[in-house]
Amino acid sequence: MMQGLIDQFAAVLGNQYVLTEDQEKAPYLTDWRKRFTGKALAVLLPKTTKEVASIVKLCASNNIAIIPQGGHTGFCGGATPDNTGKQVILNLKRMNQIREIDVANQTITLEAGCILQAVQEKVAAQDLLFPLSLGAEGSCMIGGNLATNAGGTNVLRYGNTRDLCLGLEVVTAQGDIWNGMKGLRKDNTGYDLRDLFIGSEGTLGIITAAVMKLYPMPISQWTTLVATDNIAATIALLNLFQKRANSLLTGFEMMTQESLALNEKHFPQMANPLKGNPPFTILIELSDHESEEHVRQLLEVILEEAFAGNLISDAVIASNLSQANSFWHMREHITLAQAQEGANLKNDITIPLSSLDRFINETDAMMRASFPGVRIINFGHLGDGNLHYNIAAPLGTDPKIFNQNNEKAIYELVYTQVERCQGSISAEHGIGQLKLDDLRAHKGVVAHELMKTIKKALDPQNILNPHKVVSI
Amino acid sequence: MMQGLIDQFAAVLGNQYVLTEDQEKAPYLTDWRKRFTGKALAVLLPKTTKEVASIVKLCASNNIAIIPQGGHTGFCGGATPDNTGKQVILNLKRMNQIREIDVANQTITLEAGCILQAVQEKVAAQDLLFPLSLGAEGSCMIGGNLATNAGGTNVLRYGNTRDLCLGLEVVTAQGDIWNGMKGLRKDNTGYDLRDLFIGSEGTLGIITAAVMKLYPMPISQWTTLVATDNIAATIALLNLFQKRANSLLTGFEMMTQESLALNEKHFPQMANPLKGNPPFTILIELSDHESEEHVRQLLEVILEEAFAGNLISDAVIASNLSQANSFWHMREHITLAQAQEGANLKNDITIPLSSLDRFINETDAMMRASFPGVRIINFGHLGDGNLHYNIAAPLGTDPKIFNQNNEKAIYELVYTQVERCQGSISAEHGIGQLKLDDLRAHKGVVAHELMKTIKKALDPQNILNPHKVVSI
Repeated sequence: MMQGLIDQFAAVLGNQYVLTEDQEKAPYLTDWRKRFTGKALAVLLPKTTKEVASIVKLCASNNIAIIPQGGHTGFCGGATPDNTGKQVILNLKRMNQIREIDVANQTITLEAGCILQAVQEKVAAQDLLFPLSLGAEGSCMIGGNLATNAGGTNVLRYGNTRDLCLGLEVVTAQGDIWNGMKGLRKDNTGYDLRDLFIGSEGTLGIITAAVMKLYPMPISQWTTLVATDNIAATIALLNLFQKRANSLLTGFEMMTQESLALNEKHFPQMANPLKGNPPFTILIELSDHESEEHVRQLLEVILEEAFAGNLISDAVIASNLSQANSFWHMREHITLAQAQEGANLKNDITIPLSSLDRFINETDAMMRASFPGVRIINFGHLGDGNLHYNIAAPLGTDPKIFNQNNEKAIYELVYTQVERCQGSISAEHGIGQLKLDDLRAHKGVVAHELMKTIKKALDPQNILNPHKVVSI
Repeated sequence: MMQGLIDQFAAVLGNQYVLTEDQEKAPYLTDWRKRFTGKALAVLLPKTTKEVASIVKLCASNNIAIIPQGGHTGFCGGATPDNTGKQVILNLKRMNQIREIDVANQTITLEAGCILQAVQEKVAAQDLLFPLSLGAEGSCMIGGNLATNAGGTNVLRYGNTRDLCLGLEVVTAQGDIWNGMKGLRKDNTGYDLRDLFIGSEGTLGIITAAVMKLYPMPISQWTTLVATDNIAATIALLNLFQKRANSLLTGFEMMTQESLALNEKHFPQMANPLKGNPPFTILIELSDHESEEHVRQLLEVILEEAFAGNLISDAVIASNLSQANSFWHMREHITLAQAQEGANLKNDITIPLSSLDRFINETDAMMRASFPGVRIINFGHLGDGNLHYNIAAPLGTDPKIFNQNNEKAIYELVYTQVERCQGSISAEHGIGQLKLDDLRAHKGVVAHELMKTIKKALDPQNILNPHKVVSI
C-alpha cells in the first residue's frame, strides 16, 4: 500500500521530488537544535500550490500525517516528524518565487519557500524594507516565519510576522486552497482566518504564499550602548525613548553583566566597550527617514536627558556602521558563548514591562537559592518585554548531568513565575513538540479547550502536524 | 416558561437590570441608521463578567439566542435583534470600568462598556494616546469597537482596533470565561484566539474586557489641504509622504470635487479653502513627538518636493488648531451633506493602492453609463485604500424610489469591480445582517466554508448573534 502511495506522490510531483532513500531524507529529519530526530515515509518537494493540494488530498484519503517544513530552523521541533516512519514531510523550499513587488501598495507577494534574507535583499534593491530580521534569516523561510509568527530584532517598531502579513494562501486539511491573497490594510469581511493560520505551526493548514507589508528604507541608523544600574531605571529609559523618539526607536536590547562576562570569556574581541561591565548594558538603535544629522542630534538630546535623570551612567555611540555592527555582534554572540560553555536551559519568555523588575529580582533569588552556583544568562529584546532567561550549570559541574537532574524543576520555577507575572512561556519560538505539555499546563483550561475545538473542527482527521502545539 | 426564564435573569442581575416593558426596550431595538428594527424578549444589563457567564449559561440551557450590544452605533445591523421576539439583548454598557492604566507597559485594561471618547480623555490626562478615533466615539463602546474591528481616522499610523489590542476576556457560547487578559507584545503560545474573537461581531463569544495599547501623546500636529489632479499623482504623493515623514504621517484623506461641491451646497461655511475646487482635495496630517518647528519644517520640505514634482497644484497649511479642525470638519461634513440631500447608497470598500486609479476610473464610467445623472460622492481614508464610494440619485429624482429600483444593481456593479481589483466589500463597517448575503457571494467558497466550520465548532447551538456575519 505504501509503495502505491509513493507512486501516487511521484505522479503528482515527479520522481525526483519524492525522497525515500535514508540518505536523501536524513537532512530533513533532525531539528536545528538537534533535540529531535524522527523518521519519515517520504520527503515531498512540491513546486506549486496545486501540487500541495493534491498531496494533502492523497494523504487525507490514506490517513497519512503531513509535517509541513520550511528552513527547519525552529527551536521547538515543530517541523520534525515523529518516530513512526508513517508521516510524510512536506518541504516547501521549491516554492520560492517572489510573485510581485508592488511599490505603490508597499507590498510583496511571495511563496512560502522564499528564504528571508533573499527577500530582504530583493526589496532593499528597490529602496524598500522588509523588517523581519532574526538569527536564522540566511536559511529560514517565509512560510516557517508565518507558521511560527516569528519575532526577532525589529518587533519593537514593526511587530511580529503576524503584523507584517496582509494576505495568505493556505491549503486546508481537506486539500482545498483558500485564496486570501489580498494586499489590503483594512478588510472586515468576516472571521480573521489569516491570523488563525499564522502561528498555528502547520497544524490547521499549510501556508503556501503570502502578501507581506513593505516599508520605506530608513536612510540613517544610530546605535548606542548605555549602562544602567537596575531594571527600574532601564524601563524608565525605554519610556523616555518611546516618548521622545517614538517610532524612530527600532532596537532596545538588554544584556546582563553575567551574560557579557561569559561573552568576553569566549570571545575576548567582544569585550564590552562600556567601563567596568555594568549591571545592565542596553543596546539602543534609532532609525530615521530624514537625515543622519537629525537622528544623531535627537539621540544626543535624549541621552543627555537620561544622564541628567540618572537613568544611565555611561554611554558609547557607535561612530560608524562597523562599530554599530560590533555592538549587535556582541549581543548576538551571547548565544554562541553559551554554546561554547556547554549545554544550557533556554527560556524565551515575555513579561509585562511593569512586572519585569519584580520578575527578575524574585526569580534570580529563587533560582540561586534552589540551585546554588547556577549561572543566569539573561538577555533579550527588553523593549518587547522578551527575555532569553537562560540557565547554565554551576562552574565545575557537568552541564549535561546538571540539566538532566534539574531541567524539570528549573523550567517549573521559571514558568510558575511567568504565570504569576501574567507573562508568556513562549514569546517568539512557539510550542512545537518541545513545549506541548507546558502549554497544556500553563495556557488555562478554557483557552486549551478552545484550541482543541478549533483543531478538531478544521482538521478532524488530525493529519496536519499532529501532536504539535495541541494534542487532540 | 418565558416568565420563569425572566425570573432567572432577574435573580442573576437584579430586577431593574432586566428590561421587559416595550417602552424600556425600544431604545435598544433599532440600529443607528434606522435600517433595522427588531423585537426582544428582554434587554439584559449585566455589571460583571460572571453575570454575563451566568446569563449565557441560562440562555444555552433554554436555547435562547443572545444579541450582544454596546453603543449600538454600527452601520450593518450587527447588534439589532431579529423579529421573533425570542432573542435577548445583552447590552454591556454597565461594564464600564477602567481597571488599570499601566504607564510603564503602555497599556490600559478596561471593560467592554467603556465609551471610546471617555477612554481617550482618561489616558490623555496622563499624556498618553489611545489612537482609536471615529465618528461615533461619543457613544460607541470598546466592546463594539473590538467586535467589529473598528477603523477610523488613525488607522494609517496605528492600525485598526485589532492592532491596538493585546489581551481579551471573553465569555464563550458555553458560558465559560476565557481570561486572555495579558498585556504582552509577544506571545506565541498556541492559536490566535484573540484575533478570532476580534471582528467576529459577537457571533463566536462575548468580549467583556480587554487590554489595549497606549502610545505617547504627540506634542505637535500639522494639517494641510492640497489639490491633486488625478489618483496617480495622489498615490505618488502618499508614497512621498510615507518615505519622507514615515510614521509621522497620521492622516491622508481624499475628497472628490463632487463630494465637496455637495458639502458647500448644504454648508456654505465649509467651503474648500483651495482655489477652484480641484478634482481631488487631500487632507494630510503629520503628528510629531519632537517639536512644532521640526514637524512644520518637515511638512514644508515635503510640500515643496511635491510641487516640484507636479504632484500637487495648490496647498493650504492650517495656521492654527482651529483651522486644522475646520479642515477635518469639512471632511466629516460630507456625510452630513449627503444626509441633507436625501437617502443614498453607501459603500465602505478597500482597494489596493496600485489598483485605485483603475478602480475609480472604470467604476465611475460604468456607473455613469448605467445610471445616467447619478452622483458619485467618493471620499475616504485614501492612505488605507479605504473609499466611501457612495452613490446618490440624479438631481430631480426621488432618492427613495431611485434607490429602491437600483440598489441591487448598483451594489452588484461596485462589488464586482471590488472583486476584480482584489479589494474588500467591507473595509471597516463589518457585515452584521446588512451584508450577510454579500459576504456569501463575494468571500469565496473556501473562506466561507472555513467560517461556517468555525462558527459551528465554537457555537454549535447557534445562540450567539445568529444570522449575523455567517449563517449556519
